Amino acid sequence: MRAVVVHAGNVALQDVPQPIPAEGEVLVQIRLAGICSTDLEIIRGYAGFNGTIGHEFVGTVNGGSAKLAGKRVVGEINCVCGKCDMCSSGLSSHCRRRTVLGIQGRPGCFADYITLPEKNCLIVPDTVTDEEAVFTEPLAAAFQVLRQSKIEKRTQVAVIGTGRLGILVAQVLATTGCKLIAIGRNERTLALLDRRGIRTALAGDTQLKQDFDLAVDCTGHPDGLRIAMGMVRPRGTIVMKTTCKADHAADLTPIVVNEISLLGSRCGPFNEALNALARKAVDVSGMVTRTLPIADAIAALKLAEQPDQIKILLKVAS
Amino acid sequence: MRAVVVHAGNVALQDVPQPIPAEGEVLVQIRLAGICSTDLEIIRGYAGFNGTIGHEFVGTVNGGSAKLAGKRVVGEINCVCGKCDMCSSGLSSHCRRRTVLGIQGRPGCFADYITLPEKNCLIVPDTVTDEEAVFTEPLAAAFQVLRQSKIEKRTQVAVIGTGRLGILVAQVLATTGCKLIAIGRNERTLALLDRRGIRTALAGDTQLKQDFDLAVDCTGHPDGLRIAMGMVRPRGTIVMKTTCKADHAADLTPIVVNEISLLGSRCGPFNEALNALARKAVDVSGMVTRTLPIADAIAALKLAEQPDQIKILLKVAS
Repeated sequence: MRAVVVHAGNVALQDVPQPIPAEGEVLVQIRLAGICSTDLEIIRGYAGFNGTIGHEFVGTVNGGSAKLAGKRVVGEINCVCGKCDMCSSGLSSHCRRRTVLGIQGRPGCFADYITLPEKNCLIVPDTVTDEEAVFTEPLAAAFQVLRQSKIEKRTQVAVIGTGRLGILVAQVLATTGCKLIAIGRNERTLALLDRRGIRTALAGDTQLKQDFDLAVDCTGHPDGLRIAMGMVRPRGTIVMKTTCKADHAADLTPIVVNEISLLGSRCGPFNEALNALARKAVDVSGMVTRTLPIADAIAALKLAEQPDQIKILLKVAS
Repeated sequence: MRAVVVHAGNVALQDVPQPIPAEGEVLVQIRLAGICSTDLEIIRGYAGFNGTIGHEFVGTVNGGSAKLAGKRVVGEINCVCGKCDMCSSGLSSHCRRRTVLGIQGRPGCFADYITLPEKNCLIVPDTVTDEEAVFTEPLAAAFQVLRQSKIEKRTQVAVIGTGRLGILVAQVLATTGCKLIAIGRNERTLALLDRRGIRTALAGDTQLKQDFDLAVDCTGHPDGLRIAMGMVRPRGTIVMKTTCKADHAADLTPIVVNEISLLGSRCGPFNEALNALARKAVDVSGMVTRTLPIADAIAALKLAEQPDQIKILLKVAS
């Protein structure tokens, strides 16, 4: 089968053997996959991962489960042991022995087929299109912010960075009715948020006042934290939503002096994300700037690096 | 009067005019002052402060208040407006218009006299010696950790750095009965904690396991955060207790991937600290490695840089 494989900093479309589901796993034929900034970081060396990349997908179950056979599914990307201290204390997304689809110890979804534990799969309702369902994983990551911080109507919130993830985070936070502004560099993505009734500002235009209760760094760049530290009030909160390969060569003094809480935030609740898509609480239309066949995956990855692009999808099977 | 003045990276003992208390302020004759790492950082340029340094003191009120006249006092170092949004929302230590003794906009206590708002002063009980009372300010900063994090008997806690502040933090956290270890480079300070029944380890000897619920970085060095990130479990907490002039050139990926909460922590409750000293809940004896007269302040500041020294005091008046 075809697979987009990273090896020692190179990425190539290769022919690899089709995987065979282990006990409790299903075989999923990938329909559509989404390119995430983490994929681009992995190609640059982040996480030290070699193998098939990709972790955002919607696919069809094609073996390994009678119950799910033929069903359209999305899948939780953390594959966990269920036994370690993290799993048994309710923190299974931090399982000590986890593999993570296309990120850690498990081949990813930029391929014709993947295997995944059956318990990781969620059936996609018929009312949710492939083009919506493929956003479940990053949307779940956006919902994680709501689980980690208390956001009320009066909470002043800034989303910093309006790329692929920032657009989703801004929309999820907007559902709380909080006082929200999304700050980005790209007029195209800002216009997209404007159309959804979310207040926006161009990065340079905003005065960096210490007035926000909460800032969510979705920049994927070391600058994001510096900007966030300049915007959050004393005893405010910064949620770090993105990783990057580069070091944060930052003066962290404001964290101490202003007693800021900095919360790391990774994966989130898939069921909440899929529900939000089903009831149209979050609108992902307009985020897909190009869809390319998996045969053109290398070109698609290059395109995803362009600042004027938002989400690039890979069409695998229909 | 004599004062230890920093100007443009130079520090000198100078003769300066004695301050005159403003409305609501008292004049305090300094008896004993303590050298803190922040003083050394200010000399290196931290906080951009020029003027008389020093913020740890015990003194005698010598004017400006009938009620406090002749009393031995310690003093909260943040002088606040009482009116801004921070003050009116109970966050007065983050007052937007604050001055901070010897750190920001207000001459410090390495001098014969200071002025301070009367409301900032706490009377020192007779049972507390000058040599104990002078630790009230850093001990208050140590108590702030208890206010910011939930520490139970089963909580696994690491105090990283056993310098001036780390020794106090370790002792304060030990009062909770939590599972505590203090990690440092200096065998002298580790031995001091050992004698108080606190488990210790030499920095190099400790395996950096992801098993601690809470790590408190008291190193005053960018390395502290890196070490803490390697020791805290997923969804654990790091309290950053110290600032430093140098940038944290750190890869903050573990914060995101392990969803760590990083909490900045600055000043704390003076009354709790003074009470703890009065009831001997914290033992500061053995922490003072030298006491020099203020006339020898420059030598004392140099001495405080030495790794084998813990607290250096300046004797001002008796």
